[in-house]
Amino acid sequence: MEKENETKTEQEQDQVVNPWEVSAKGTGKIDYDKLIDQFGCQRLDQSFVDRVFRLTSRSPHIFLRRNVFFAHRDFNEILDAYERGEKFYLYTGRGPSSEALHLGHLVPFMFTKYLQEAFKVPLVIQLTDDEKCMWKNLTVEESKRLARENAKDIIACGFDISRTFIFSDFDYVGGAFYENMVKVAKCVTYNKVVGIFGFTGEDHIGKISFPPVQAVPSFPSSFPHLFSGKDKLRCLIPCAIDQDPYFRMTRDVAPRLGYNKPALIESLFFPALQGETGKMSASDANSAIYVTDSQKDIKNKVNRYAFSGGQDSVENHRKYGANLEVDIPFKYLSFFLEDDEELEHIRKEYGSGRMLTGEVKKRLIDILSELVERHRAARAAVTDEMVDAFMAVRPLPNMFN
Amino acid sequence: MEKENETKTEQEQDQVVNPWEVSAKGTGKIDYDKLIDQFGCQRLDQSFVDRVFRLTSRSPHIFLRRNVFFAHRDFNEILDAYERGEKFYLYTGRGPSSEALHLGHLVPFMFTKYLQEAFKVPLVIQLTDDEKCMWKNLTVEESKRLARENAKDIIACGFDISRTFIFSDFDYVGGAFYENMVKVAKCVTYNKVVGIFGFTGEDHIGKISFPPVQAVPSFPSSFPHLFSGKDKLRCLIPCAIDQDPYFRMTRDVAPRLGYNKPALIESLFFPALQGETGKMSASDANSAIYVTDSQKDIKNKVNRYAFSGGQDSVENHRKYGANLEVDIPFKYLSFFLEDDEELEHIRKEYGSGRMLTGEVKKRLIDILSELVERHRAARAAVTDEMVDAFMAVRPLPNMFN
Repeated sequence: MEKENETKTEQEQDQVVNPWEVSAKGTGKIDYDKLIDQFGCQRLDQSFVDRVFRLTSRSPHIFLRRNVFFAHRDFNEILDAYERGEKFYLYTGRGPSSEALHLGHLVPFMFTKYLQEAFKVPLVIQLTDDEKCMWKNLTVEESKRLARENAKDIIACGFDISRTFIFSDFDYVGGAFYENMVKVAKCVTYNKVVGIFGFTGEDHIGKISFPPVQAVPSFPSSFPHLFSGKDKLRCLIPCAIDQDPYFRMTRDVAPRLGYNKPALIESLFFPALQGETGKMSASDANSAIYVTDSQKDIKNKVNRYAFSGGQDSVENHRKYGANLEVDIPFKYLSFFLEDDEELEHIRKEYGSGRMLTGEVKKRLIDILSELVERHRAARAAVTDEMVDAFMAVRPLPNMFN
Repeated sequence: MEKENETKTEQEQDQVVNPWEVSAKGTGKIDYDKLIDQFGCQRLDQSFVDRVFRLTSRSPHIFLRRNVFFAHRDFNEILDAYERGEKFYLYTGRGPSSEALHLGHLVPFMFTKYLQEAFKVPLVIQLTDDEKCMWKNLTVEESKRLARENAKDIIACGFDISRTFIFSDFDYVGGAFYENMVKVAKCVTYNKVVGIFGFTGEDHIGKISFPPVQAVPSFPSSFPHLFSGKDKLRCLIPCAIDQDPYFRMTRDVAPRLGYNKPALIESLFFPALQGETGKMSASDANSAIYVTDSQKDIKNKVNRYAFSGGQDSVENHRKYGANLEVDIPFKYLSFFLEDDEELEHIRKEYGSGRMLTGEVKKRLIDILSELVERHRAARAAVTDEMVDAFMAVRPLPNMFN
């Protein structure tokens, strides 16, 4: 049985993971197994990968095969319902705090695009410009501008416009969406949000008001233009695990409002170049590969900053092999190198010391360069009219076909 | 100099006055002079009444002459601006917690209608259906229904549709209004709202989120369909003094957002029939005269429940006279008996014991019956189409003419 664990406050935990902070005592490395216990979610094991393969008749996404999406809540129920012929919808989002996205930001969108294609379901994407305005001290205008810029990067991931509604909170909060915000807010005490999110009395009330805004896209009635009369439609949320606190709160509240609990499928953090001590930071340009980086930037960043698990001399490396547990080039390859056999080959050769860090980095540079170049070309093709079209409040008559 | 006094928390005060509680230690009678000190607002003295008379060339409203509106913040600045030929707008509102309004609810609307007519200015009326949904545990649907019913009573007060926009929060929150809510929320800490409103950790976050919703109608940019390009337009808020905490908060925040502080003109509470120990309660039907009461109800309630300052026997009454300080029939007459000379006559005759309580009550019953009958007829004439028209989000091209 799932337990929605909220008895320990953040301060009492060895590692703190919430939407604004990811940190761990000691090595700084997140213990994901412990996190699953701490949050009360479930491990996503091989049986899920096999089942998704069977149900969708297509090769499971690399992020599923490689356990990048490693935890879930009620994903089994989504698959049960799908198998019975019931539909669901996807919900994901982004806080638009920076002009350019880095690779870590792309992870949930690449995966969500796959889910949309594989299951043929509608998708809502929330741009929390209100959140970033409050947390990052951006002006309303700047937050809205960044939301639109980020929408272009998201559209460039290849979402199907006949099944996708992208919205910014500053544009869309109101009406049925606001009604649901109020309903959620009524069910959550201040002490509760302090326990979940670690707010203090000196935090402004905008922060305390925000969790319902991120909660309510989980409920179909927040989108009357899409899901009118479909109040029982299930929602699946692909996200990084730091977003779990929002949805723990949401799942706690949902039955009291007569809604289904949203299901979740949750990813690891994409590690920083300097090593796996949390998630990439948008504020340190050298900690991440951006979708705007040139081929030269990528080469330079990988060669200079990507933390190597290789040994300090060639002799030692040949003797002991690379420590793949901490090696960033190998970790990045496991996210983006599609070919399972090649990855296995590198694991063996590099892990045993027959392959050197330089060779692995070279392969990574090629793969990232191609990925970023593909994204750049796709983004260049995204016009303002396309952004308007994705963000128009409109019915999606063929969203389930 | 005005001081916006927020250093003492409510708990430390002898009397508690906030939007949800009005109480005083000891007699239970509110000390309004002390309240002015406590809140840091200003007394509205005779010079204001004279000045309004001069500026508007019409007899000042009975509520102004009789000091029902007894306190203000920056009302002098509104009048200065008006004298220079500058315009302003009015903002008032109602929390729709009950089907029928009582006389106390009518006070701000009757006065606001006079201000609109006298100064020829636009008016926005906020129906806080979201607030009542959260505080009174009403459903969203019921709150919205009550908002519409209350709008009919408000329209029946005679507002000019070419200068009046009525909105419900559930309908109108969003867009520019929501942007201002976020801007305000960013400027107010949790500790601050605890100090102002007395929230506790067990209060739900809807309550903590609400103050910005009531704050932002004070800023013209919350109404782009009315005040686009008029960001410096001043706002005057007629309200009962229990709403002061919201606007103390708003005035504190306004300059940080580049807006003018809203000005206030604040009334006494309309006393309960049982005596002046706070404001009328909508939950005790015998404490108030409702606009739906029949002439028989009014006669019965006044005769049975209106607290008399008369003496316990006719002999003593003739000897000592009535105590007008606590006499409810006399207080009610001072709100609603237009004729200053007749009121003065009653003051002398009743105060000296020559007039008996029964005579005063009889005069009051006549006046209230007429008032309520007039309201009932006006409300019966309010159609759903009129409600839609007042609540339509539309420009008001002649609002200043």
